[in-house]
Amino acid sequence: MIQKRANPDHPILEVLQTRWSPRAFADRPVEPDKLKRVLEAARWAASSFNEQPWSFIVATKEQPDEYAKLLACLIEWNQTWAKTAPVLLVTVAKLTFSRNGNKNGMAKHDIGLAVGNLTVQATAEGLYLHQMAGIEPDKVRATYGVPEGYDPLTAIALGYLGDPAVLPADMQAMESAPMVRKPLSQFVFTGRWGEASPVVQ
Amino acid sequence: MIQKRANPDHPILEVLQTRWSPRAFADRPVEPDKLKRVLEAARWAASSFNEQPWSFIVATKEQPDEYAKLLACLIEWNQTWAKTAPVLLVTVAKLTFSRNGNKNGMAKHDIGLAVGNLTVQATAEGLYLHQMAGIEPDKVRATYGVPEGYDPLTAIALGYLGDPAVLPADMQAMESAPMVRKPLSQFVFTGRWGEASPVVQ
Repeated sequence: MIQKRANPDHPILEVLQTRWSPRAFADRPVEPDKLKRVLEAARWAASSFNEQPWSFIVATKEQPDEYAKLLACLIEWNQTWAKTAPVLLVTVAKLTFSRNGNKNGMAKHDIGLAVGNLTVQATAEGLYLHQMAGIEPDKVRATYGVPEGYDPLTAIALGYLGDPAVLPADMQAMESAPMVRKPLSQFVFTGRWGEASPVVQ
Repeated sequence: MIQKRANPDHPILEVLQTRWSPRAFADRPVEPDKLKRVLEAARWAASSFNEQPWSFIVATKEQPDEYAKLLACLIEWNQTWAKTAPVLLVTVAKLTFSRNGNKNGMAKHDIGLAVGNLTVQATAEGLYLHQMAGIEPDKVRATYGVPEGYDPLTAIALGYLGDPAVLPADMQAMESAPMVRKPLSQFVFTGRWGEASPVVQ
């Protein structure tokens, strides 16, 4: 089992440091109460005008037909590894505000906030997740009857960490690659675009 | 001082439960080391192809000219309360992938993930933040020289909780309004759009 960690320049919460995105999950279900808490965490995220533009379609291996249905909505390459996860989710964004029907330009951003919350709760529960942009939105739409005005956005594989040996060789190598990030000075600016802020120096 | 909390149906982490979005901030600076950790947390978020499409423009009241410059990029209504915060940030999304120049449809979503991380670290540090969609993107672009291919997205007011008495009367009332969210059964589905999932029942 690979226990990857962030390598921060400034100390951050353990729950943020231990998060990474595995492709190998253990053949072990997620306890129902844990799954409820993980989704509850998403519920309490902030959103523009408190629109809560997020929905989640979820399937677990306890319901094999539902699981197969959701797995089939991922692009093929993602199916090869995501099938090891006991829980799969698809996020769906509501594109307009319920209050006035206007376009919600923050819908995708706010789904990110909700999934951020979900991720923190999951990590604290000993779970890992791997998000995917690689889904077939039209297939999600047709399979589940997603109405106009809503866009399927991402998928999430969720579960306990597994043995990379279950993966094809090329994916095993990706599993053990260290986490890398740009330094703060490359994306925190003051005064002028591109000028590293004094607050990160 | 108002100490608002989420009211979850299932227990979630304290750091997720104590987060809310005040408009009244205390006249107290954010310690430099705390601010570094808050930004460091954003750095370690997940993103599509690890693009890290987020940038932050930041200003603190220690640099009054820079602070005034950033405050002026918010819509007027937001300026009336955000000026109580010791730190202001603007998020900027890179719209294409650095690897191949293709459109990054996850840029806004991934900024949400980064700000989600930032929020959790801030809350753990005793800080609060209030995000705003209400900015003047063209003014940000002109003021800071934000290049083509990048879009100013949101602003964030960050600091310690303050006394609502510093706010206009209508905003004071909003400050004490309870947090409300849709129940899980209204946005977690299995099998078909709109059908509450058994995992949340």
